[in-house]
Amino acid sequence: MSDAWERLLPKLEEMRDIGHAIRLLMWDQAVMMPPKGNAGRASSLATLETLYHGRLVDPAVGDLLAELDDDPSLDTTRAASVRVLRREYDRSTRVPEDLVRALATARAEAYQVWTEARPKSDFAMLEPYLAKLFELKKQEADAIGYPVERYDALLDAFEPGATTADLERLFGDLVDGLKPVADAVLDAAGDPPGFLFDEFDEDRQRAFCEQLVTQLGFDMDAGRLDTSPHPFTIMIGLNDVRQTTRTNRRQLLSSIYAALHETGHALYELGLPEELAGLPAGAVPSLGMHESQSRLWENQVGRSRPFTDYLLPELKRVFPEELGMLSPDEFHRGVNHPSHSLIRVEADEVTYNLHVVLRFRLELALFRDELSVADLPAAWNDGMEANLGLRPSNDAEGVLQDMHWAIGSMGYFPTYTIGTLNAAAIFAAARAGIDGLDDDLRAGDCTRLLAWLRDNVHAHAYLAPASELFERITGGPLTVTPFLDYLRDKYAAIYDLP
Amino acid sequence: MSDAWERLLPKLEEMRDIGHAIRLLMWDQAVMMPPKGNAGRASSLATLETLYHGRLVDPAVGDLLAELDDDPSLDTTRAASVRVLRREYDRSTRVPEDLVRALATARAEAYQVWTEARPKSDFAMLEPYLAKLFELKKQEADAIGYPVERYDALLDAFEPGATTADLERLFGDLVDGLKPVADAVLDAAGDPPGFLFDEFDEDRQRAFCEQLVTQLGFDMDAGRLDTSPHPFTIMIGLNDVRQTTRTNRRQLLSSIYAALHETGHALYELGLPEELAGLPAGAVPSLGMHESQSRLWENQVGRSRPFTDYLLPELKRVFPEELGMLSPDEFHRGVNHPSHSLIRVEADEVTYNLHVVLRFRLELALFRDELSVADLPAAWNDGMEANLGLRPSNDAEGVLQDMHWAIGSMGYFPTYTIGTLNAAAIFAAARAGIDGLDDDLRAGDCTRLLAWLRDNVHAHAYLAPASELFERITGGPLTVTPFLDYLRDKYAAIYDLP
Repeated sequence: MSDAWERLLPKLEEMRDIGHAIRLLMWDQAVMMPPKGNAGRASSLATLETLYHGRLVDPAVGDLLAELDDDPSLDTTRAASVRVLRREYDRSTRVPEDLVRALATARAEAYQVWTEARPKSDFAMLEPYLAKLFELKKQEADAIGYPVERYDALLDAFEPGATTADLERLFGDLVDGLKPVADAVLDAAGDPPGFLFDEFDEDRQRAFCEQLVTQLGFDMDAGRLDTSPHPFTIMIGLNDVRQTTRTNRRQLLSSIYAALHETGHALYELGLPEELAGLPAGAVPSLGMHESQSRLWENQVGRSRPFTDYLLPELKRVFPEELGMLSPDEFHRGVNHPSHSLIRVEADEVTYNLHVVLRFRLELALFRDELSVADLPAAWNDGMEANLGLRPSNDAEGVLQDMHWAIGSMGYFPTYTIGTLNAAAIFAAARAGIDGLDDDLRAGDCTRLLAWLRDNVHAHAYLAPASELFERITGGPLTVTPFLDYLRDKYAAIYDLP
Repeated sequence: MSDAWERLLPKLEEMRDIGHAIRLLMWDQAVMMPPKGNAGRASSLATLETLYHGRLVDPAVGDLLAELDDDPSLDTTRAASVRVLRREYDRSTRVPEDLVRALATARAEAYQVWTEARPKSDFAMLEPYLAKLFELKKQEADAIGYPVERYDALLDAFEPGATTADLERLFGDLVDGLKPVADAVLDAAGDPPGFLFDEFDEDRQRAFCEQLVTQLGFDMDAGRLDTSPHPFTIMIGLNDVRQTTRTNRRQLLSSIYAALHETGHALYELGLPEELAGLPAGAVPSLGMHESQSRLWENQVGRSRPFTDYLLPELKRVFPEELGMLSPDEFHRGVNHPSHSLIRVEADEVTYNLHVVLRFRLELALFRDELSVADLPAAWNDGMEANLGLRPSNDAEGVLQDMHWAIGSMGYFPTYTIGTLNAAAIFAAARAGIDGLDDDLRAGDCTRLLAWLRDNVHAHAYLAPASELFERITGGPLTVTPFLDYLRDKYAAIYDLP
């Protein structure tokens, strides 16, 4: 038995500690930093990321990995860390340094231009930068390598092991299954309940969200809840996981459901096993698995009838004048009111995934060289019309709405839908495993659900790939059935559909 | 002309960027971090400090410095940076790595034990840890070297160029001059005004402090004001300087004067020349010079009659019921009411420096091996009785009150008094240079004062040692006269003293 693991460990700990600082720099930039501090912050972040990257691609790490790959004397958790690190090491070392730098520059430029182009709805401004970035991302994918096609390499960064072929099949099934549900729900929905447009004091929204996330099991001594324009969750380090929500006077539900969503992410990070903290196998195994937890708390829990029946009286305590007369039926309908929107982040549970599928298909066509960046806006608008029956009147509400491509996150979008599908399947398994779960939720008691998720999801960290973990939890591979069943059941109950 | 400077610059920039992250980790730890995050934070901080230190003592830096020392082709700002870096490099490389590590461990242990010993008032608990730390600090001083005596080496860390001999003379003059003032003021003062003990809503205190520091010229787009138990200011990076204050329902003046004090530090950091940002010569030249700015805004400005005449109506707007009946005379007396206290941080302007002198003399005796750590509590209590006529009844209100020794900051205390003396002299120069300054302050208009400080103090950064800068500003070396004159004039006016 070699001492290669003992020699690797201090390197992993150093990377963990540099990563801690990087994540704090990022959190602070989004939540606390005064605006004029941005240039200094960008420089510090770039330097620390270079230090981190240098440690990851250090040839000494490669030598240690060569000693450790398939070392039969490693226990299972160390072997898992070696597998995860091997993946990251190979992905990182295969991309030449000059391409890494070119990508960093192109991303920074495209993002900057995107922030200017979006308010002007001027895709032509962004086009050359985006074309450059897509070109570089193709080179990156080719450098990393792939089993079947280029897009696999990009997807693999966020959803290790997922393949383009699997997603095409899965997303095809999803679109086929969703369209009739979407049509029926939109027909039945009628006008939105009036409280969705009332005004609610933002300080009280914030205080309510704090109480709510604590009630769900988020430990305020091991994290924070702040506000930021784009809600997010970030693990700074062991026992320090920070989430944000956003408040808007005229959108009470926005702060609450953002908090429920981010709490799902945060509870996952806080549930990872402490003994693996900072080790490669101590992380979440994929973005889709991460998103499964946020969607589950936001939707399967947060928009369920038992939970909205718990939530409304709590809300009435904080907003007695505004909500005093609201009925449980009306509140539940409001929480689930379908919004047939041009904008992904405003979409409801039914149409949300049609937005994602469109992006996936456009990305795929671009990486297959079947579509050019110049033709993106038209392809986007045609796709929206075909899939949602809506056509954007300008690019701000079309192809320019999301920042993902401008920051080089190609292959990221599908993880939203993988997460949605995972959530429905995992919640179905939880419900089967927890007797009387609805009664718990009706009482606002999430203790048993959280314990089940800790045992069945969180505790497994990245000891196995996400797809293996998923199969162990749900007993089979990912399909669209649990999600479609969940949607049909929910809306059948709300609108008396057949 | 060599290109050594060009080869040094990227190293300086990397240190600047790592320093940025270190300071953010520290600020966040004190202001934002959830308590359970502490272990992960300590590890990240230790790793980044090791990275920083490794870069500072890198033999390549020594080689570049050898090329750059006395290079006549360097312009003055670069030559100044080389001098400052040479100082830091020499001080750091002279201390052996195992002593650096032993000091870090001993500091962490002593601090931890101090946090437990102080509430129990149990010096015996702390004694062995403190004795160990003083022993190691002696070794550190001997490793660094000194011109005349050991204490010089410690002092030099915080107040470059200051000598023990100078301070002994200066502090002797100060004690001689202060005692009659202290006696007269304490005789004349009478009971404190009642508003000092009234209750004031803490949220409104915070809002008032925000408005106040903005009025003084602190740019909220280039910094933050938060609250923390121990107010402090930290420069995170270029255009990002953060200060904190503390609020207490029963101590309105505490939040306001902490904010005035910290704003002095913050304005100094924000006034350093942008073109020197992150370079060794772009910093404040000494802690005493730093403290001169905080004391000046807190005392020479904040406790002056013109400024309290501005402040009171502003405060009445926020606390109309609580302060409506308060007269300008009574407010000014309250702001300047002498508090003859056992606790340094609660002391008034007159007796504060007697606390500092006591600590200086005890440190000196310890480093001269004329006093043992075991005898510190008795020596402390005797010194308090001799200098302030008060004897602590236990060690919590005596030798255990400050954390400085437990964190290894021996040689730090004198900078508080150097700052106080600097402040009075610099303000006297400002008053001589700005026609009608009192009228400005009476109107709450600090524009001309800030501009004068920017020109005469801040803009010079660390291009020259602090003593040179001081002489350029005030026309002569540091004496106690301006401070004693300031105190005598102020209290003569308040209490009709001769």
